[in-house]
Amino acid sequence: MDGVDHLAFERNKAQFDVEEMKIVWAGSREDFELSDRISRLVASDPVFRKDDRTVLDRKELFKNTLRKAAHAWKRVIELRLSEQEAYKLRSFVDQPAFTDLHWGMFVPAIKGSGTDEQQQKWLPLAYRMQIIGCYAQTELGHGSNVQGLETTATFDPKTDEFVIHSPTLTSSKWWPGGLGKVSTHAVVYARLIIDGQDYGVHGFIVQLRSLDNHLPLPGITVGDIGMKFGNAAYNTMDNGVLTFDHVRIPRSQMLMRVSQVTREGKYVHSNVPKQLVYGTMVNVRQKIVADASVALSRAVCIATRYSAVRRQFGSHNGGLETQVIDYKTQQSRLFPLLASAYAFRFVGEWLLWLYTDVTERLKANDFSTLPEAHACTAGLKSLTTTATADGIEECRKLCGGHGYLCSSGLPELFAVYVPACTYEGDNIVLLLQVSRHLMKTVSQLGTGNKPVGTTAYMARMEQLMQYHSDVKKAEDWLKPNVVLEAFEARAARMCVACAQNLSKFSNPEEGFQELAADLVEAAVAHCQLIVVSKFIEKLQQDIPGKGVKEILEVLCSVYALFLLHKHLGDFISTGCIDPKQGSLASEQLRNLYSQVRPNAVALVDAYNYTDHYLGSILGRYDGNVYPKLYEEAWKDPLNDSVVPDGFKEYVQPMLKQQLRNARL
Amino acid sequence: MDGVDHLAFERNKAQFDVEEMKIVWAGSREDFELSDRISRLVASDPVFRKDDRTVLDRKELFKNTLRKAAHAWKRVIELRLSEQEAYKLRSFVDQPAFTDLHWGMFVPAIKGSGTDEQQQKWLPLAYRMQIIGCYAQTELGHGSNVQGLETTATFDPKTDEFVIHSPTLTSSKWWPGGLGKVSTHAVVYARLIIDGQDYGVHGFIVQLRSLDNHLPLPGITVGDIGMKFGNAAYNTMDNGVLTFDHVRIPRSQMLMRVSQVTREGKYVHSNVPKQLVYGTMVNVRQKIVADASVALSRAVCIATRYSAVRRQFGSHNGGLETQVIDYKTQQSRLFPLLASAYAFRFVGEWLLWLYTDVTERLKANDFSTLPEAHACTAGLKSLTTTATADGIEECRKLCGGHGYLCSSGLPELFAVYVPACTYEGDNIVLLLQVSRHLMKTVSQLGTGNKPVGTTAYMARMEQLMQYHSDVKKAEDWLKPNVVLEAFEARAARMCVACAQNLSKFSNPEEGFQELAADLVEAAVAHCQLIVVSKFIEKLQQDIPGKGVKEILEVLCSVYALFLLHKHLGDFISTGCIDPKQGSLASEQLRNLYSQVRPNAVALVDAYNYTDHYLGSILGRYDGNVYPKLYEEAWKDPLNDSVVPDGFKEYVQPMLKQQLRNARL
Repeated sequence: MDGVDHLAFERNKAQFDVEEMKIVWAGSREDFELSDRISRLVASDPVFRKDDRTVLDRKELFKNTLRKAAHAWKRVIELRLSEQEAYKLRSFVDQPAFTDLHWGMFVPAIKGSGTDEQQQKWLPLAYRMQIIGCYAQTELGHGSNVQGLETTATFDPKTDEFVIHSPTLTSSKWWPGGLGKVSTHAVVYARLIIDGQDYGVHGFIVQLRSLDNHLPLPGITVGDIGMKFGNAAYNTMDNGVLTFDHVRIPRSQMLMRVSQVTREGKYVHSNVPKQLVYGTMVNVRQKIVADASVALSRAVCIATRYSAVRRQFGSHNGGLETQVIDYKTQQSRLFPLLASAYAFRFVGEWLLWLYTDVTERLKANDFSTLPEAHACTAGLKSLTTTATADGIEECRKLCGGHGYLCSSGLPELFAVYVPACTYEGDNIVLLLQVSRHLMKTVSQLGTGNKPVGTTAYMARMEQLMQYHSDVKKAEDWLKPNVVLEAFEARAARMCVACAQNLSKFSNPEEGFQELAADLVEAAVAHCQLIVVSKFIEKLQQDIPGKGVKEILEVLCSVYALFLLHKHLGDFISTGCIDPKQGSLASEQLRNLYSQVRPNAVALVDAYNYTDHYLGSILGRYDGNVYPKLYEEAWKDPLNDSVVPDGFKEYVQPMLKQQLRNARL
Repeated sequence: MDGVDHLAFERNKAQFDVEEMKIVWAGSREDFELSDRISRLVASDPVFRKDDRTVLDRKELFKNTLRKAAHAWKRVIELRLSEQEAYKLRSFVDQPAFTDLHWGMFVPAIKGSGTDEQQQKWLPLAYRMQIIGCYAQTELGHGSNVQGLETTATFDPKTDEFVIHSPTLTSSKWWPGGLGKVSTHAVVYARLIIDGQDYGVHGFIVQLRSLDNHLPLPGITVGDIGMKFGNAAYNTMDNGVLTFDHVRIPRSQMLMRVSQVTREGKYVHSNVPKQLVYGTMVNVRQKIVADASVALSRAVCIATRYSAVRRQFGSHNGGLETQVIDYKTQQSRLFPLLASAYAFRFVGEWLLWLYTDVTERLKANDFSTLPEAHACTAGLKSLTTTATADGIEECRKLCGGHGYLCSSGLPELFAVYVPACTYEGDNIVLLLQVSRHLMKTVSQLGTGNKPVGTTAYMARMEQLMQYHSDVKKAEDWLKPNVVLEAFEARAARMCVACAQNLSKFSNPEEGFQELAADLVEAAVAHCQLIVVSKFIEKLQQDIPGKGVKEILEVLCSVYALFLLHKHLGDFISTGCIDPKQGSLASEQLRNLYSQVRPNAVALVDAYNYTDHYLGSILGRYDGNVYPKLYEEAWKDPLNDSVVPDGFKEYVQPMLKQQLRNARL
């Protein structure tokens, strides 16, 4: 049956131009061609095979990762790939490795926080991978609260050195990827101590291992922190533990772009603004949002294709059973996720613009939009990663029992994705930051400080407080403005309600703690509004291709009305809509699902993922699921022998009633 | 620091008698003592250690499982344990194994569906484990829809045999636990064919492997289906694939309690009612609900203890940071789960009573309560397993980064638990069954058929349709009747709304398909009402012990008001409560969290889990988390050597710029 497209009948149903949609998804024709070319390059290279990953033990798995990383780097050199192409290559290799941290954290940290001199010294080494670096920030006892880090860097004026030291067990560096086994260097975050005074947390470049024999340098204890969630997932990564026993580094290895320590031990600030740090954060979080859309779309692609292959119930007279994608319960769980993947894609695109905008303003010493941009990216990171982690697991459940098999690709996808909810800012902590910004924005309404960017709608607060939806029939919910206003009014009113409740506390910080759960909900409402509004804005652009814009409009409505239904309590209890309007939205949602249905498989084809990248038998492009599942089963090591290891020692004595005398 | 109780200060805060709560949790003093004794027995036996599980490869892991199963059985024999004690022993060993299916499915299937003669022949063999059996129902292409199974059992009157055959690839048996490598026998479900006529699906006892050399018998192909979600989790189990090529079994091996095939090939029914099957289902699902409370409570125990150990932010002048359990955001996510674990415990207890009641009625040929009991257990299975799977993952996130380490125990707990959402009835399919029962109940209101059991409240439909909550202040929400009525009115109105919408369809089945998502929501509302009402009923009993009943009342309110807040849209849009009352409920919920806080650690101590059973460093009884996390890290195989395997081949050439010539 190889070579047959078992999903051709689904693909023929599509009412839009899939090739044009691929361009929309990729962002541009150039981006599409780049991804297409690099993903095929990876898929066709046997070194990058992934199908054996889940049966390798930790050491084999790790060694295999080292091999892939080396091979990837070799290909980058051989093919003279650009930085962007190399990044794509690593992401299509699809196996977390030390190189992610080297390129994604170590190099940017030096670029962002190193002086020109430091950059000239270290970056060429890093670019050629003559040194391999990681980013050693979090400690065993300290994660979200960076200011609570305990590692010290004490200036010794006698030798012009810093002494890096781990004063407690909880100060052990813990989690940094690439640290455990591979990195030769790290950017280490430590409290700067000069003459007994604590100047807070700063970054230092520290060599960890000999460049000759890779052994840890004196005073350094370093290792892997052990197994993590999932079969392969992040077990390909050497997340590490690191302690320092009075390790000395030259003064020149403190990252000194923003503040310096002089030869005399004086702590001075440069004229480079501290706010630069936030620019970097906006960049990192923009990438996380973009990655969310990729991860969610992979899961949705698998679940959608399999839902079209899988049939269950509904057979009449021995005919075919019903495709599970035809069940409304399946649609009402799957299609909102399909729509979410597109929504996150477009908001990620917009964040890229925001980052460019912020960067340009920073260059011009304009910090005015930074707090809003920072809150916005923090909130979107939280919203999209939470929805994606939950969405992947929902897609797994939508595949029934077979979704539990590693060969479905979904367990791996979930396990490798979920840390995104925790790293780069715990999602709840981030939402609290957003809510602080929102409360500040509300408190400044009517003053000279006009709300900017994604909070601009709050300038119309009076109008929003009086708003009541004028929806009268289900189709009214298809109008972008109707949806947008309802989301604006809901977010605005939830913020105002929080602000009013906060004002009842004499100690504002106490109020903030007490009302934290409500504040988080208000922040979520605000962030959902951002995603909805950016989807709507995207659709105001010119989008070519037969039926492309039309089906995206359907998805935009699905996304918004699904959220409205899910958070119906917010919308009704704030008086934005009434129960009747809520049930009209549900009615419209059902109609929309019917419009998505014939386009579902084509909509996930538009992601243009190779079978290698998807790594899922259930999600195979050709839909040839059952024969391949069957084939795959026999590859398990347990099937190496018909009678399993351990049978003679442990099963036979049981069957033969000889257990009493057996040595176990 | 060993021997020090780092959580003593938390335990001292408790306002209730923990020892008495242990009895309440266990169900009775006898149950407590049984669990306590057996769990210690397992914990103290080195063969049952679990801490190395996640680094074993599949073959080692499976062999280790065989060893544990044999050792457990040896202990059962040596200590002459009762059936109940043996069951407890297996559950505290806490590693899925073929024995679960042998005792939990194979033996009950023969007991339930075998004639007296068949029971006399097969049960003694099974009881002594001279044969090992599994339950082969699901097929590669057929899960939820049992009537769609394809395997055939064709009667051959010439030889008085059935010919068991797999006519297609999709008819391969797929998933049965214990099948792949261990079972010698199976109860196989197949379509009974006599003289070309299809009599539907029946059970047959089929020998799979030789009792001498364990090789598959002629015509039988059997193997393991491969890796599943998680590191160890269900990879300890040989879920199997099985195909038959015209395998012959004696006619006497069809399970013939309900219907028989005579020597002449006549298909006849016995006088044993078919409804017996439902009794078994009620039993299996009651166990699943009980297991849900156990799984959720384990996760909650880990997250609660670690939340009391972990400190982050809020340090003033270098003092200790704030315990994360003191944050309202942490409380509003954790405490509802703590309350849910208790809620599920009590509803599980009640289901045990229901099963006894159903069994007695069946004996007396009274089938009147069976449909309601069946719907009720189906719904509770769905509700509790979904909430537990989500709750475990939420607990993992509540532990921040460290929850992602296998040594936290939480990844394993999640991966091993989630299939409960799919097996024994997919959770959405089950809710649709519940909703069908509810629609039938609504349609029969006013006729002679009075709603019984958990649907009895619908008899007061007129009153419920007129209901509006009279809550005026936050404390009003503490009154059980106030809560109960709100939940009853909400469920009743959602059912009626569905029934009204259904009536608009000329084809009822089409309406049912179209409105499936709404019907699922109505079923959820009904099931939540059951859990809330059984919690309230439990508290009407006499519960001894200082403060025990009081704190359970707090948990009951937490559970109910958390649900009310989560589904606020339902309550308000059906007009059961107004927005003001909704916000009073939230206010009350915050107060309740403050009441739970000092009791939180003691409430999870009351589960009486050993550290062995919890299998979590974060959840250690003594709270000595950080030193043990640090110690554990070094045990990973990657730390066997300071320089990792693969360094010379793959990393050194990179660092030395010699990659171009390297063979990878």
